[in-house]
Amino acid sequence: MKLHCFAESGNAYKAALTLTLTDQDWEPVFVDFFNGATRSPEFRALNVMGEVPVFEDGDLVLTQSAVIQDYISSKSGKLGGRSAAERRDVLRWMFFDNHKVSGVAGPLRFNMNFLPEAKRNADVNAFLAMRLASALKVMETHLTGRDWLAGEDMTIADIACAGYLFYSEPFTFARTDYPQIDRWLDRISARPSWKHPYDLMPRGLTSAT
Amino acid sequence: MKLHCFAESGNAYKAALTLTLTDQDWEPVFVDFFNGATRSPEFRALNVMGEVPVFEDGDLVLTQSAVIQDYISSKSGKLGGRSAAERRDVLRWMFFDNHKVSGVAGPLRFNMNFLPEAKRNADVNAFLAMRLASALKVMETHLTGRDWLAGEDMTIADIACAGYLFYSEPFTFARTDYPQIDRWLDRISARPSWKHPYDLMPRGLTSAT
Repeated sequence: MKLHCFAESGNAYKAALTLTLTDQDWEPVFVDFFNGATRSPEFRALNVMGEVPVFEDGDLVLTQSAVIQDYISSKSGKLGGRSAAERRDVLRWMFFDNHKVSGVAGPLRFNMNFLPEAKRNADVNAFLAMRLASALKVMETHLTGRDWLAGEDMTIADIACAGYLFYSEPFTFARTDYPQIDRWLDRISARPSWKHPYDLMPRGLTSAT
Repeated sequence: MKLHCFAESGNAYKAALTLTLTDQDWEPVFVDFFNGATRSPEFRALNVMGEVPVFEDGDLVLTQSAVIQDYISSKSGKLGGRSAAERRDVLRWMFFDNHKVSGVAGPLRFNMNFLPEAKRNADVNAFLAMRLASALKVMETHLTGRDWLAGEDMTIADIACAGYLFYSEPFTFARTDYPQIDRWLDRISARPSWKHPYDLMPRGLTSAT
């Protein structure tokens, strides 16, 4: 199994961490995003959406981190829900993640760290920060009195919603502001095979934090 | 079956249109979003995410439009994929929608039409418009030479990605800029039971376009 990825991508990290935590035999294929690789005709032929991650399992090609996570969970029988109701709840938090967490944290972190300084815009970043805080507050409330987002064990929904939150570049998220999220991230990273994204995939920018 | 909704919400519309196009017996329950109903403790107890749509089928309560769409598709045996591979492709476009289409078109349309004028920000809206155009370009490319986003028939993925595009309030989307999307939207609205969101759910703002 191969994962086309680069370590700065939180969406790639969600797929990579799912592969790792389910003990799959896989290898990363570096995508040179910061030098335009995802805009090339070759990459667009592989994924019309022009994004990492792209996953290959033999002839099967999948894109969208959540779809890859769902496939690996089904294949391994791990990190999914235990019933139809739990699986719907897993899916619910994965959509929440794509829409409100990663869908906002990703662009905000990119704007604040990887965009040339001349192109950074304080109003845009304040708007994204407000939306991210709103989504994190929902998670903080939901995690009060429970260990995991969906069901009674860690699932791919936790990996999805946590993905971006393990990066140390500034994007207005501070663990100290969210004690429930802080402890939940500790529960995830306490898993023996857990790895930080920069220890799991090749980095595009060696000079980044 | 009940759908807690208001007609201006494109996310509610995706669920409502799925119910309608699969011939379900359902009724809308109006949520007075513009007067703060989704921020009330009662609504937060129903959905910690503080969002419409919320769907009830007897004792079952579901949130997230895509999860509701998936449930209705499975229950009716309609608008889903025909194989495991097609179902994964359906899910792929639904995640793309949540992340890149609705996740951007929703806030942009809100900012341009429903936010008080004093709070509107041209830089924020330009950023969202750029991201929306990028996602629509992906769909335009993908729909060239094919009728539907996933598989050979209309699926819930088409309903998800099209949801916001049927609204007439300005949000920088013009059908004339995207001829493939234009024809695809015509294919969807040609279904006999298709309805515009304002004919399917109660409106919160009677003065809107």
